[in-house]
Amino acid sequence: MQKTLPILSVGSMAFDSVSTPAGKADQVLGGAVNYFSMAASLFNPVSIIAVVGEDFPKNHLDYLNTRGVDTSGVQIAPGKTFHWTGEYTTNLNEATTLHTALNVFEHFNPKLSPAHQASRVVFLANIDPDIQSKVLDQVTAHELVAMDSMNFWITGKLDALKKIIARVDVLCINEKEALQLSNTNSLSKAAIAIRNMGPSTIIIKRGEYGSAVFTPTSTFLAPAVLIDNVVDPTGAGDSFAGAVVGYLAENHAHRHWIKDQPAKWDALIKRAVIHGTVMASFTIQDFSIDRLRKLTREELNLGKEQFLKLISF
Amino acid sequence: MQKTLPILSVGSMAFDSVSTPAGKADQVLGGAVNYFSMAASLFNPVSIIAVVGEDFPKNHLDYLNTRGVDTSGVQIAPGKTFHWTGEYTTNLNEATTLHTALNVFEHFNPKLSPAHQASRVVFLANIDPDIQSKVLDQVTAHELVAMDSMNFWITGKLDALKKIIARVDVLCINEKEALQLSNTNSLSKAAIAIRNMGPSTIIIKRGEYGSAVFTPTSTFLAPAVLIDNVVDPTGAGDSFAGAVVGYLAENHAHRHWIKDQPAKWDALIKRAVIHGTVMASFTIQDFSIDRLRKLTREELNLGKEQFLKLISF
Repeated sequence: MQKTLPILSVGSMAFDSVSTPAGKADQVLGGAVNYFSMAASLFNPVSIIAVVGEDFPKNHLDYLNTRGVDTSGVQIAPGKTFHWTGEYTTNLNEATTLHTALNVFEHFNPKLSPAHQASRVVFLANIDPDIQSKVLDQVTAHELVAMDSMNFWITGKLDALKKIIARVDVLCINEKEALQLSNTNSLSKAAIAIRNMGPSTIIIKRGEYGSAVFTPTSTFLAPAVLIDNVVDPTGAGDSFAGAVVGYLAENHAHRHWIKDQPAKWDALIKRAVIHGTVMASFTIQDFSIDRLRKLTREELNLGKEQFLKLISF
Repeated sequence: MQKTLPILSVGSMAFDSVSTPAGKADQVLGGAVNYFSMAASLFNPVSIIAVVGEDFPKNHLDYLNTRGVDTSGVQIAPGKTFHWTGEYTTNLNEATTLHTALNVFEHFNPKLSPAHQASRVVFLANIDPDIQSKVLDQVTAHELVAMDSMNFWITGKLDALKKIIARVDVLCINEKEALQLSNTNSLSKAAIAIRNMGPSTIIIKRGEYGSAVFTPTSTFLAPAVLIDNVVDPTGAGDSFAGAVVGYLAENHAHRHWIKDQPAKWDALIKRAVIHGTVMASFTIQDFSIDRLRKLTREELNLGKEQFLKLISF
């Protein structure tokens, strides 16, 4: 039996102000590692590396602790928490950023504790690729690294982004960004081009249309769950990644499987993606992390069983 | 052993002039029943009810005959063949119509021969819903009716459209049009609303993202095949329907199965949709019906086996 170490995750803890066809939410809890850790903690303990301002509610960190999320790596810095303002109009697959106030994130320079340095599974959520590198540099013996990114860094910091992409095993990226990063017009070409950059497994997120997963030895297409009452798509991708990485960690996945036991890896990553898909379907049914607060592993499993019926041939 | 009757199909035989990111094709063979019959004839004989002008190549009708397509119901009228001019830009899921010249279609008034009136399976391809009704009126003992339509009729002839929709068993319709027709914003709500209009089975086409199938007793989500070299999406939906209806006819499907043997119907419609999905993936790899000319049932089956691997969990 292997020891269950927390997944080390780095990324944003934030306030979001978001407007969707279903309504508005002002100054609510958001940020990639917030969603990620809410989802992943249903599978495996998580440690967060992040920075928040003095305005961030201490009781939310306490709440995360009750879920098995270690927040000792969350710095509280003088100033305000990162604040994202965005909206979704007709296309729920794509947010329009109206305003980004980096605030305390502007000078974020993460220093890992010895316990964090000893992490086995690492998730680098969407954030400045230089920060992603800085965190990974400090992890001494990682066995599996996954990451996410976004168009902002593809456009603005491509060299730094490519440097960190070269070091990860699993890249989660949305469809449009995969095509942009690879400068191609088809998903399979994009997967090949991105694999040449480093990651052996590429998970391309297609919003309400599901995902396409490319490993060195297989391709897997998964639709998304049909949801009638989409309230707010924010965090869908981060909670998807949370379930994927959480499930991989829970099953003690190791990067050597990708080469040495490809069938085992392929089967595991499929199951991980199914969990991610169902997780995201819950996230979008309420604003902020509100739906995830109530979600249990049992409810997720029930959703997974129902979903498998929809896609089984 | 039941007798194999041809599928009766009505719709357009046309010339298309189309421009896509991959190139241009001018005045090539197109039209919904052209694509439909090319696809369906790999499964079951087909009869076409349509009208063409004197400029339509006689040798194409001869060619269709060699594929088991009965063209005795294709009238050759004085004047020019229907001509559609359209283009695809970045979004390959949606054509922009630049020009439509109805020509001989303007006065199309189909009269069915006794043999055609005795058809068992009917496919009403996208065309004026009054013509769809007129054809169905003449079929005396149909056992399964499928149809397709488009936004043009939803906007322009909704009452006539609803009249014919009320009489069909299987409606094939694309995602955007399903939402428009049902005035809802979710696929499952759209399926429920459309079922209340009449058809018990609704197949919602989602372009490169696959399809969602709703029967009274099940929902099935199928991704589409990933295609690197999309040349021209024209005819994807019609050839998809050709394979679906062809496969249903080949398996002697009857509308009473939907109520009396729902598990049999659900399994059959899933397999039909898988065949349709793979068929469409071939269609879009060349202009006009050119890829379908070369496609064999063996090649389609091979494609189907490969596709099933991509979606199997």
